[in-house]
This record gives sequence, C-alpha cells and structure tokens, in this order.
Amino acid sequence: MKNRAAVIGAGSFGTALSTVLTENYSDVSLWARRAELADAINKTRTNERYLPGIQLADAITAYSSLAEAVVGCTFVLLVVPSHAMRETVRALAPHLHPDAIVVHATKGMELDTLKRMSEVIAEELPVSFRSRIAVLSGPSHAEEVGTKAPTTVVVAAPDRKVAEVVQDALMTNRFRVYTSPDVIGVEVGGALKNIIALGAGVSDGLQFGDNAKAALLTRGLAEITRIGVKLGANPLTFSGLAGVGDLVVTATSRHSRNWRAGNMLAQGMTPDEIVDQMGMVVEGIKTTKAVNELAKKYEIDMPITRELHALLFEGKEPREAVNHLMGRVRRHETEDMALRYFENQ
Amino acid sequence: MKNRAAVIGAGSFGTALSTVLTENYSDVSLWARRAELADAINKTRTNERYLPGIQLADAITAYSSLAEAVVGCTFVLLVVPSHAMRETVRALAPHLHPDAIVVHATKGMELDTLKRMSEVIAEELPVSFRSRIAVLSGPSHAEEVGTKAPTTVVVAAPDRKVAEVVQDALMTNRFRVYTSPDVIGVEVGGALKNIIALGAGVSDGLQFGDNAKAALLTRGLAEITRIGVKLGANPLTFSGLAGVGDLVVTATSRHSRNWRAGNMLAQGMTPDEIVDQMGMVVEGIKTTKAVNELAKKYEIDMPITRELHALLFEGKEPREAVNHLMGRVRRHETEDMALRYFENQ
Repeated sequence: MKNRAAVIGAGSFGTALSTVLTENYSDVSLWARRAELADAINKTRTNERYLPGIQLADAITAYSSLAEAVVGCTFVLLVVPSHAMRETVRALAPHLHPDAIVVHATKGMELDTLKRMSEVIAEELPVSFRSRIAVLSGPSHAEEVGTKAPTTVVVAAPDRKVAEVVQDALMTNRFRVYTSPDVIGVEVGGALKNIIALGAGVSDGLQFGDNAKAALLTRGLAEITRIGVKLGANPLTFSGLAGVGDLVVTATSRHSRNWRAGNMLAQGMTPDEIVDQMGMVVEGIKTTKAVNELAKKYEIDMPITRELHALLFEGKEPREAVNHLMGRVRRHETEDMALRYFENQ
Repeated sequence: MKNRAAVIGAGSFGTALSTVLTENYSDVSLWARRAELADAINKTRTNERYLPGIQLADAITAYSSLAEAVVGCTFVLLVVPSHAMRETVRALAPHLHPDAIVVHATKGMELDTLKRMSEVIAEELPVSFRSRIAVLSGPSHAEEVGTKAPTTVVVAAPDRKVAEVVQDALMTNRFRVYTSPDVIGVEVGGALKNIIALGAGVSDGLQFGDNAKAALLTRGLAEITRIGVKLGANPLTFSGLAGVGDLVVTATSRHSRNWRAGNMLAQGMTPDEIVDQMGMVVEGIKTTKAVNELAKKYEIDMPITRELHALLFEGKEPREAVNHLMGRVRRHETEDMALRYFENQ
C-alpha cells in the first residue's frame, strides 16, 4: 500500500478515479472547487451530484483547499475541465511536492491557445517537472469505473519509467493500465473523439441509422488521425485504446455526455441551452471550436469538424449538415487511403 | 439505366442489394435456392422470410434456376453463405456471361481449406475471370440498406477499372461506394469482424459494460490486423470501412446476428441451439473455427479468437473466457504497438 495520492477535480471521472486509487493508496484526497461539495462528500461518503449511487471508501477525504489536498503527495491526478486547467495548475504549483508526478485525464484543448493539456500544465509548472507530466485516456465511462466494471486505459509519458509509475499507481484487477510514449497522440485522440461523438449523437438524433453512424465514426477516425499526425502523433495510437477504443465507447454509449449533446442538437437546441440543461461541461462543443481553428491553421481537411462547427456556431440546420457530409464524396472519388495505396503500386 | 444484373442469394443482404441495383438497372434477377422462396417473392413482392416489410420494386424477378437468373448479365453479385460459395459458383460457371464481373458480399471463409471467398470463386471459374472478381464489404446492415438509410461500403478488386464498374453499378444517393485495391484486407476484415462481434455479444450478455466492450473491440481490431497483414493485407484497410466501420456496426447494433449469437452464448446456449433458434447462418461461429486454425498455421497470437473457440467448441464457461481475456495482460506489459514504438526510438 502506498501512502498518499491526490485527485484534483471532483467531477464524475475524478471521483471515479479516486475510488480506483484507494486500492493502491491508504490515503486519497479529492479536491473540489466548491467547499459545499467537499463537505457533502465527506459527510455522505458519496458524490451524489456527479457520481450518484457509488459508495466512497473511507480512505477518500475531500478538500476545497489545494494546499491541503496535495501535501505529501508524489502522485497528483488532474481531472478538471479543460477551460479550468491553466488556472488550477497555476494555483496548485506552489503547493506541489517537488518530486510529484502530475497526470491529467482531461479530454479537451485550451480554447484561446489551441494547446494540449500537457502543454498548458508544463507552462504553469517549473521546468523540473517537464519529464514528469503524463496523460491518461481510453474508453472509461466514469459510471462504470465507479461500479468496478472491467476497464482498460492508456497512460502516456515522455519517460517510460514515469509511465510505469503511473501504471503502478492506478492498476487494479478491474482497471488495467497500458503505457505509451505518445503523449501527443493520446491527448489528441481523447480530445478530438468528443467532436465525433457529438456528430454521432446528431446522426442518431436524426435517426440516420447504424450504417450511417459507423461511416461517420470511420471517417471521423481518419480525420482525427490526419491532424494528429500533423501535430506529431504516432498514427498507430489512433488504432488503440485512446483512438478507436475511446471513439467507440463515447459514440455508442448512453453514458456519453457528448453523444447526448449531439442528440439535443439534432432536436434543434442551441449549445447554450444544451449546457444549461445538462448542468455539466460538454467538452466536445468547445473542442469543435478549437479544432476547427487548428484545421485551418495547419490546412488539414476535417469535414466532420467543419460541419459540426457550422451546426453549433453558424446556425446550419442539423439535417443539412449531415446530408452534406454523407453526400460530399464525388461519385468517382476513392477512399483517400486506398487512393494513396493505388498510387504507390 | 443499365440493362440486367443478377444477385445470387436471396437472404437478407442479397435481397437488400437487389433493391439498390434497381436504381441503376432496369432488370434485376434475384436467385433463391428454394423454388418456394422465389415464387413467394414474385407473388408477394416482398421477402418476408429474410427482409420483412420491404416492398420490392417491379424490376426485381426471383428465380430458382441459376441459368435463367444470370442470362445476359455482365454484373453478377454473389451473396450466399460461405459454406455454399464453392458449389454455387461451380453450378453457376457454365451459365456466366464471358465478360461478367463477379462480385461477392459474403463475410466468411471456407472452413476446410481456410481460403478467402475470392480464392474459392477464382478456383471455380475459368482463368479469364481472374481480374474480374471483386469483393464488397463495410458497415451495411441489410435492414437499413432495405429502408434506404444512408450506407457506405467499400469495393475491392485487383484492377481499379473493375472496382469502378462495380462502384457505378451500385452507387446511389443513399448507398455510397468507395473503391480499394486491397481484396485481401477487405475480405479478412469482413470475415473476421464477425468473431469480434460474437465476443462483444458475450461481453454484453455477461453485462461487463461499455468500457469492456470497447477494449474488446480495440484489441480485436489489433488481432485482425495482425493476421491480415500476415496474409498480405494493407494494414490501413483495417482503419477503414471494412475494418473499424464494419466492426463498430456489427458489434454494437441490435441488428447484428453475430452479436445476438454471442448474447445467447453468454446465456449458456450451445452453437447448435443458437443456429436452430435463429434459423439463419451465423458466420462468426464457423469463422472462429477457421481463423483459430489459421492463427495456429501462421503462428499469430489471437487471444480473443482462441477464447471464443474454447467457449464454442471446448466447453469453456463464458465468464471464465472473458475474465481470462481481461486478465491476461501482465502487470508491466505495455501495449504491443507502443512497445514497438518505444523500441524504435
């Protein structure tokens, strides 16, 4: 049993990950931004707001003070919304143990800078932390992690030893952790799959069927891979847990927030109405905005992202957007990868 | 409008594809093995047994004579179960138009020889047909093709011009056809995904959850890609419609026969009982047997196929098989592709 670990962010996934950590740590602190939430968790031993029905082990203590949450922790897991990452890490920095490994499990990008989460974290911490920043991603609905349903995730870090420490910290017999060196690929896969999940929700909301959704997921994966490789990712990462795996679970599961948001979009609700009604952050909406900018900047063709952007922010009709996607391929156009293959023969 | 095309096999998918062809051909013949089925289709203008509720256009005529079905057809689509492919093509050969293009849409392998369907077809036709044998695959549930829900498929042929003729024959504004040169990859993807769909059905039947299913699909795709490449496929094909796309739709849709069969397996039914109860061929069961042999022959590690084989034919308990799969990775083992990447740095 290890000593003390901290989870920063008491949303659904942060709370679920704190329960995983109790199998390897005798003392797990869970930081919530709001003191009332921290108090409620400590009193009721559940997080009824974000992970209802899951009993929290006694090893978990909730805090609303970052300093108290991380004192003595060499393992710190960040699970805050992407828009709050920079300010949270900035506030956290003075209190971090100098040897701490900092892992994040946030699937999004910083809107203004178009930066990945590990880049944001690195900018807000002393340079000495650079090799100790890791990312966790993969098909892992919080509700199922909370009920100990079998789950596999991938942890990427530039230093293999760091990735293995994170693996040791989190691995249980129901929560299996693979390691990878591809931080960029794992972050891009995790963040961008939310866009495709939104699209799948729109397609399902319009009752286009399973064939159409499968086509959307496949072409979406190609689109994610295209920009990921441009940003420096290993293309194989997108065939793994942080790519295909996460895409499948997010886009087909009733648990997925982004899929549900897409469904509401199909009913004609606006992004603001959706976030109001769900009462939670929908990362895919913000990510669509960021990635649409990235695609322009790097001149990468991302038709699904473009149509969703039009739907979310330019008033395009859902049916028109999806029809446009389905119909955009010219009659004699071959699948791009097949085309390249033909040309190489 | 083109003249006359034939579909050989009046099951769910064959019947659905005959309705697609009516948008490009004025005369579509649909061959059924049993004369009673052919008569019923011609009388009722529906195929109530295999594609209930879909009205068949007047351009479709059902036959139980192969000679009558294919006379004057330079486009012939084979959609028979894998075990019937050889005898059907052998019987068909003397009647084929000498310029005919022969496309198959059968997702399976020949059990005794472990051959792909295009190999079986090639063996039963004169050598002059060799460059005119193509395969159609992708996420395309027959029920949705029948109701004209948006669907995308891929057609592979060794000769690009042949693939484009098939594309022209089948393309409509709701049925989009991509071309590929990778016959092996498209056939392997289509056949082997049924194994993974079975596995997903077992996992769901045991209520392991969406995270576990996503892990199974991801690892299953890796396993399919591994043997596909060994057999000569382009690995990129498995990221496309005949790989990821087909896997997603088969493994997550309520329409999928193989997924349903996996569910029944989880309830403790035997393969024979399942086939009896469904009253239809379950390709995944036979394919598991064939591919388990192939994996041994080529010494490829296919743990999901191996466990399903044990479950189907060696009396292993479903829960034991799935637990074994989830638990098989050693604590410090890294994901193979990541491992290779590490080693290449």
